[in-house]
Amino acid sequence: MALSAIEVNQLKQAPAVEGVLPVVLGRWSPRAFAPREVSSADLKKLFEAARWAASSFNEQPWRFLAGRRGSSAYKKIFDSLVERNQAWAGSAPVLILGVAKSTFSHSGSPNRVALYDLGAAAALLCLQATALGLSAHQMAGFDPGAARAAFGIPENFIAGAVIALGYQGEPSTLPDEQFIAAEIAPRTRRPWNESFLSAWDEPLDLG
Amino acid sequence: MALSAIEVNQLKQAPAVEGVLPVVLGRWSPRAFAPREVSSADLKKLFEAARWAASSFNEQPWRFLAGRRGSSAYKKIFDSLVERNQAWAGSAPVLILGVAKSTFSHSGSPNRVALYDLGAAAALLCLQATALGLSAHQMAGFDPGAARAAFGIPENFIAGAVIALGYQGEPSTLPDEQFIAAEIAPRTRRPWNESFLSAWDEPLDLG
Repeated sequence: MALSAIEVNQLKQAPAVEGVLPVVLGRWSPRAFAPREVSSADLKKLFEAARWAASSFNEQPWRFLAGRRGSSAYKKIFDSLVERNQAWAGSAPVLILGVAKSTFSHSGSPNRVALYDLGAAAALLCLQATALGLSAHQMAGFDPGAARAAFGIPENFIAGAVIALGYQGEPSTLPDEQFIAAEIAPRTRRPWNESFLSAWDEPLDLG
Repeated sequence: MALSAIEVNQLKQAPAVEGVLPVVLGRWSPRAFAPREVSSADLKKLFEAARWAASSFNEQPWRFLAGRRGSSAYKKIFDSLVERNQAWAGSAPVLILGVAKSTFSHSGSPNRVALYDLGAAAALLCLQATALGLSAHQMAGFDPGAARAAFGIPENFIAGAVIALGYQGEPSTLPDEQFIAAEIAPRTRRPWNESFLSAWDEPLDLG
């Protein structure tokens, strides 16, 4: 199973559906990253996409701590990852930690959808990565407390996910067979009518 | 200020940046919807886009209760909205309530990023709407308890947001001047370097 990065990328494409955004169907989350830097110009485009996400009261609750490999921020984020993610994520040239402000700035009251809005901004960042030929892999597997301590994140911000970013690499560079198997497995999702419902546990009927 | 729907849509476009997905820059959240149905074929494309979102452990924690105007689901969702949202959202031909499973199916343990992943799936749905010439407006302004009671949503699912969906309408159809003013105001966001940081309160420097 010596699949190349290009073959894997083809394998990971969701089936084409006419009219559905190719960038949505083509986005997936590699663990193997190539030894290639991401330009500052491209990073700015990712950040531009993220900032235009929708948010409740236009709070834009998202903050992203980000760094290139070698920076203090990168090390702090990497050190917060669980061991199983550290095993591969160090090949990504950029790491980004997304956090969300859990209170509204205009009122101080709790923002119930802070993580929801952070997830939206991160999703746009990852889609924009795909559009630029980059790849992103989001991880919940890190220690939010360690990240909070390392960066001095205030109490009214909550950690979301870490994003590993870079160019997709060769699966053979991954540290073990389990990672390689995941890297070359097709993506799977439930059919849409198991998630879109007209009543609880009743699929929406669109004919 | 008798701006047409087309003029408003132009006004709402974020400034073009070369290489940034036009669909990201062009997506915005109208309150005025046209009296025009959304086809089942287009709804399926929206749901297709949503289901390919990333999620922790590929849990796909999202469920969406959805209905066309006139359906029982639509009425339940509409009835859960706060009064200020009921004032305009009834013009949308489709309402969708996103909820997230707050525990992992494989382990039963809490899923810290359930709302984050729901927000990502909803973001893809809304982007796909823009790609099809549709518009979506997400709202946190509803009563999650009322929605839970109306649909019998289990305790281990948490409500995210309601999405009003349809074709953008004429601002003049909105019920009051405050809505019209919001409809024709340009979109605003913080600059990216106020959200992307190298240390807490320190903008990332990309030269």
